[in-house]
Amino acid sequence: MKLYTYFRSSAAYRVRIALNLKGLPYEALPVHLLKDGGAHLKDDYRAVNPSALVPTLQDEGGTLTQSMAILEYLEETHPAPPLLPSAPLERARVRALAQVVACDIHPLNNLRVLRYLVRTLGIGDEAKNNWCRHWICEGFGAFEVLLARDPVAGRFCHGDAPTFADCFLVPQVYNAQRYDVKLDLYPHIARIHDACAALPAFIAAHPAQQPDAQ
Amino acid sequence: MKLYTYFRSSAAYRVRIALNLKGLPYEALPVHLLKDGGAHLKDDYRAVNPSALVPTLQDEGGTLTQSMAILEYLEETHPAPPLLPSAPLERARVRALAQVVACDIHPLNNLRVLRYLVRTLGIGDEAKNNWCRHWICEGFGAFEVLLARDPVAGRFCHGDAPTFADCFLVPQVYNAQRYDVKLDLYPHIARIHDACAALPAFIAAHPAQQPDAQ
Repeated sequence: MKLYTYFRSSAAYRVRIALNLKGLPYEALPVHLLKDGGAHLKDDYRAVNPSALVPTLQDEGGTLTQSMAILEYLEETHPAPPLLPSAPLERARVRALAQVVACDIHPLNNLRVLRYLVRTLGIGDEAKNNWCRHWICEGFGAFEVLLARDPVAGRFCHGDAPTFADCFLVPQVYNAQRYDVKLDLYPHIARIHDACAALPAFIAAHPAQQPDAQ
Repeated sequence: MKLYTYFRSSAAYRVRIALNLKGLPYEALPVHLLKDGGAHLKDDYRAVNPSALVPTLQDEGGTLTQSMAILEYLEETHPAPPLLPSAPLERARVRALAQVVACDIHPLNNLRVLRYLVRTLGIGDEAKNNWCRHWICEGFGAFEVLLARDPVAGRFCHGDAPTFADCFLVPQVYNAQRYDVKLDLYPHIARIHDACAALPAFIAAHPAQQPDAQ
């Protein structure tokens, strides 16, 4: 498999974690989002991914976009080790946790959105950073309650093995730290992040470990 | 089942369509997002859904949040008629289309985000409407290419029966029309929207048909 990735993209980071957890080797194809106006915006990458976003996964026979769809595909084609529980209600819980990050936090803090705030709306740096922190804190507040109120949360977001939810949470914590969001208010998130961060699959997927890291 | 819904919420609209396509009866519990400062922000609703967003689905034994997670749950618990194809690559294609809407368009045009733009960042009405149109057009541009380049697109987004992708597309078109986005540039989207709009499941899920519509 080949993964179009960017070291700091949290959506690509999710897929790197999942590939590592499943022990699937892949070739990293770095797409630099900042150099030369952004490699993701060039025609050759748009031909691969019309959304001009990373990640994109190429597997035999197909090109896959959208990190959540890619994780579901990996789960269906390489079921061991599972990254979703088996009972439908529990699967829904894990997916909902992942989607708090994928739908309620990350889309608002994406590079293209921050650029629009600055370049089109003339928002200053402090207001831009407040914007990022606001949506992270809104989302983490909900994520923390969902963890705290459910006895299924264990060492990880759902029991004692990593799931989709952890694959989404850890990159979002990495982003949060870049914006100086303190995790004191989110003890379950902080604890689960630390448990994940000790695992080889998460370590190898970290932005700092990527070939395109600077 | 009970569905916490708001007639104009496009995330709730997706779930209404899926429930109707699967022939599943449900009790609608309207959550008015505008009246009295927003029923979704009150403690009693936050106890149901800590994200303070609609929809929430209550089924025997569990409370489900996040529209995509709810659709996956309905697909797993009520597989007929299927709203996903059977082959993993095709399932990934349908999910990716749905996520262009769920992750790349809708989160940016949500009520809470527009309120932040206006109340916190002091953005005027015209700039706010341009913001909405910009993200809709970015997302629809990608969605249209994904439809156009793949021969699997048929009467609907994936073949000749509705899937998750149609459940997500139609509410987003409804939103686009509210912002005067013309569909001329998106002929596949326009054609598929019209095919969906003729089906009873989509008609019954339309905002104008909801008990809380005004």
